[in-house]
Amino acid sequence: MAKLVLIRHGESTANRDNIYTGWSDVPLTPLGIKQAQRAGKLIAKLGINFDMVHTSMLKRAIVTANIVLDDLNQNWLPINKTWRLNERHYGALRGQNKDETRQIYGKEQVALWRRSFDAVPPLLEHPDDDRRYAVNGILNEPLGESLHMAYNRLLPYWIDQIAPRLMEGQNQLVVAHGSSLRALIKYLENISDQGIDGVEVENGEPIIYELKSDLSIQNKIILKEA
Amino acid sequence: MAKLVLIRHGESTANRDNIYTGWSDVPLTPLGIKQAQRAGKLIAKLGINFDMVHTSMLKRAIVTANIVLDDLNQNWLPINKTWRLNERHYGALRGQNKDETRQIYGKEQVALWRRSFDAVPPLLEHPDDDRRYAVNGILNEPLGESLHMAYNRLLPYWIDQIAPRLMEGQNQLVVAHGSSLRALIKYLENISDQGIDGVEVENGEPIIYELKSDLSIQNKIILKEA
Repeated sequence: MAKLVLIRHGESTANRDNIYTGWSDVPLTPLGIKQAQRAGKLIAKLGINFDMVHTSMLKRAIVTANIVLDDLNQNWLPINKTWRLNERHYGALRGQNKDETRQIYGKEQVALWRRSFDAVPPLLEHPDDDRRYAVNGILNEPLGESLHMAYNRLLPYWIDQIAPRLMEGQNQLVVAHGSSLRALIKYLENISDQGIDGVEVENGEPIIYELKSDLSIQNKIILKEA
Repeated sequence: MAKLVLIRHGESTANRDNIYTGWSDVPLTPLGIKQAQRAGKLIAKLGINFDMVHTSMLKRAIVTANIVLDDLNQNWLPINKTWRLNERHYGALRGQNKDETRQIYGKEQVALWRRSFDAVPPLLEHPDDDRRYAVNGILNEPLGESLHMAYNRLLPYWIDQIAPRLMEGQNQLVVAHGSSLRALIKYLENISDQGIDGVEVENGEPIIYELKSDLSIQNKIILKEA
C-alpha cells in the first residue's frame, strides 16, 4: 500500500501579516521554519522511504520541502517543482490585507471569493511575465483563479505524475499550499463543491494517506504535535 | 555567451575533521553553511539568471545548492541530482583520518592515491546497496575510484545534460565536490593527467566560465571574498 503525504508549507510572512498571497513569492517566517522542521520530524518517526517529491514554484513550499527532506535524511530525492501545485492565484487581491478587503469590497463579497468553489477574485490587468512560468514560449500565468480553476490546472499533474507512481506502490511527498492542497483533497476524498469550504489544511501538519492500488483511501491520519 | 558556474560545497564535517569522505553523506558544518551563503551572495551580485542546476546525490552539495538558490531568489529552478556528479569514491579509505592513513600505508602510497590521475584506492569489499543509487534495478555504486574513473562516469552527464544547454545559451549552475569538479575542469580546460594534480577547488568559491557556442572558454574568473 503506497503512502501519500501532503504538507502545507510553514507560516509565510504573508500568513503572519494576514495578506492575500497567491503566486507572490514570499519567504517563511522563523515560526514557519520551525513548523517545517516539526513536520519533518513527525514524518521521520514513521520511517517512510519516499520515491519522489512534488512541490510548487514558490519558495515557501520549496524551502519547506528542503527542510523536511533534511530531517528525513532523504535530501537526494528528486524534487519536481511545478506551477500546477502553486497556490490559487488571488488576482488583484494579491498583496492586500484580508481585513482591509472586507472594508473595501464588503464582508459578503469577500466571503464569497474565499469560500465559494467557483467565485473568481478581481483579475490582474496583465500577467507578471515571470520567466519561471514560461514553458516552450507559453506563459502559464493566470490573472486570477477560483478554487475550481486551481483544481482544473492541478488535476493533470496528479493524473500524469503522482497517481501512476502511487499505483506502482511508490510513496509520494507533496509539499504545497492551503488552496492547492484543498483542491487535491477534494478530488481524493470526493468532497462536494459546498463541502470543501469546511476543509482546512494547517501549516506544517502532515496528512498521511494510505492508498490501495486503485487509489481508494485505506487510512488517513493528520500528524499534530503532541 | 552562456555562463557555467561551478561551486564546491561548503565545508563538511569530514573536511573539518580531515577525514576521507567520498560517497559518505556528511552534513555541512556551521562554517560550511556560511561559505555557501557567501557563494550565493557573490554570484547574486553578477545578476545571472540560471536555467538549471546540477548537483550530486550527497547532502553537502544539495544543501549548498539550496542555500545558493535562496540567495539568488531562484529557488524555483529545476535541480537535477545525479550520482555522476558525486565525489570520487574513496573506497576503503572512506571514514579514515588522512594523517592516520599516512601512518598505516606510508606517505608515498597515500600521495599516489591522492595525486595520481589513475591510482585506485583500496576497494570496499561490497557495495553499500544504497537505494538512491539503484536505477532500474542497476546499482551504480563503485567500490572505489581513481580520479580517472570519476572523470569517466562524470563525462556522459556533461555531454548529455550540461553541454547541450550551454550551447543553446542557457546559464548552468553545477554544485559538486572537490574531485568531481577537478575532473570537470580537467576536461573543460584540457589539462594533462599530470597537470590536474596542481588544481585545487576551494569550498564555496564560485568559478565562473563564459563559454562560446562551441564551449571554448572566453573568460574564467574565481570569486573570492574581498
